[in-house]
Amino acid sequence: MTTTPTTGARRRMGVEERRQQLIAVALELFSSRAPEDVSIDDIANAAGISRPLVYHYFPGKQSLYQAAVRIAAEELAGRFSEPHEGPLSGRLLRVMRRYFDFVADHGPGFSALLRGGTAVGSPQTGAVIDEVRQAAYEQVLSHLGIESPGPRLSLVVRSWVGLAETTALTWLDGREVPRRELEVQLVHDFMALAAVTAVHDEETAAVVRRVVGQEPTDGPLSDLVAGLLALLPHPTEAPRGP
Amino acid sequence: MTTTPTTGARRRMGVEERRQQLIAVALELFSSRAPEDVSIDDIANAAGISRPLVYHYFPGKQSLYQAAVRIAAEELAGRFSEPHEGPLSGRLLRVMRRYFDFVADHGPGFSALLRGGTAVGSPQTGAVIDEVRQAAYEQVLSHLGIESPGPRLSLVVRSWVGLAETTALTWLDGREVPRRELEVQLVHDFMALAAVTAVHDEETAAVVRRVVGQEPTDGPLSDLVAGLLALLPHPTEAPRGP
Repeated sequence: MTTTPTTGARRRMGVEERRQQLIAVALELFSSRAPEDVSIDDIANAAGISRPLVYHYFPGKQSLYQAAVRIAAEELAGRFSEPHEGPLSGRLLRVMRRYFDFVADHGPGFSALLRGGTAVGSPQTGAVIDEVRQAAYEQVLSHLGIESPGPRLSLVVRSWVGLAETTALTWLDGREVPRRELEVQLVHDFMALAAVTAVHDEETAAVVRRVVGQEPTDGPLSDLVAGLLALLPHPTEAPRGP
Repeated sequence: MTTTPTTGARRRMGVEERRQQLIAVALELFSSRAPEDVSIDDIANAAGISRPLVYHYFPGKQSLYQAAVRIAAEELAGRFSEPHEGPLSGRLLRVMRRYFDFVADHGPGFSALLRGGTAVGSPQTGAVIDEVRQAAYEQVLSHLGIESPGPRLSLVVRSWVGLAETTALTWLDGREVPRRELEVQLVHDFMALAAVTAVHDEETAAVVRRVVGQEPTDGPLSDLVAGLLALLPHPTEAPRGP
């Protein structure tokens, strides 16, 4: 049965090699169809092996799905790694580009996984998603030069990681806004959320001041403030209270 | 069996009345313990009826959980209803207060439901969560006076609904930041996210200008801009590029 023409080779694969192949095939299928629409037969066909042989390597679709989620999660978490060089906005923008590359490549799988409640979702996959969020959170903190943030700064970073998810999921649902625009917007969003908290939290304010000091004068926060000022009625025109 | 002493009455309850009682009991238990830590025995004890009688009204924990989620979701969605009176920031603040009241009252249940991957999670509960998000989204849009938003404004509102969730979940995990502070912060966050998008999107800009025009001069956007300006290095001190 292993002599069916396959992507790659007719030769007999080792156990680990075959498992890796099946995971890769599953990830490829999940990139164009939701996991619940992919059957073990589809995976067997795409891998060029028999259905029973798939079961030989993975006891069921759930275990193959979990192995695929694990690999995808490691890859996604890795995309938040970025050299500690140059202004923060540039670093975050590069991270967001790689993040959207991933989302674009794994659309239906990413969507199904994060929306939860799929036929193949489970506490295990939930835990894997939380690990990715935690990895992203820690990466961003490291770029802020903070090891043990207070609760308000911590919330800024967690909020932003969540915002990147929501934005990516909404983008996938129709892709109406160009992703390049959203990548930049998310960098601006980070500065905006940090600035909102900085107004009332000294730790976050110190981080924002340091970040701003390293930004070019035409960086995202300056753009944002200029844009905000343009939205406000001119101060001399504003009605005054009693 | 319906003569077992119960909370309230020994009298025979009607089917619908008993179902409502069991849902109320379940919601009460989920407010202090995660759903997976609540057994049918716990529910039977709290309702003062036998375990088999619980199964008479709900075929299993899953169906009782789903009924409870449905009731809680309707209640949560209702908290986004707010009269169309006064400045937007005041309306959003009242909505956020009711939202955090709900979150405070239903802590472990809210957390388990939104974190997904619980032993009792399912595609049905996922769909109910999406309905709440949709209701919140439509309520906010109605306050912006928008029926059919473009994709960018739509994303602002969906992002903010997601942000309120992330913020509430993070708050529940230790309650380190006073909720009153987070309620105000989320109103500021809305203005900040809208303003970021407004800088590049005319529809959102028009909404922000209209909202700002109805705000008091010491409203959230003015506070925000003042706070942001204080964070920026003085313009004359800023280094200039070539």
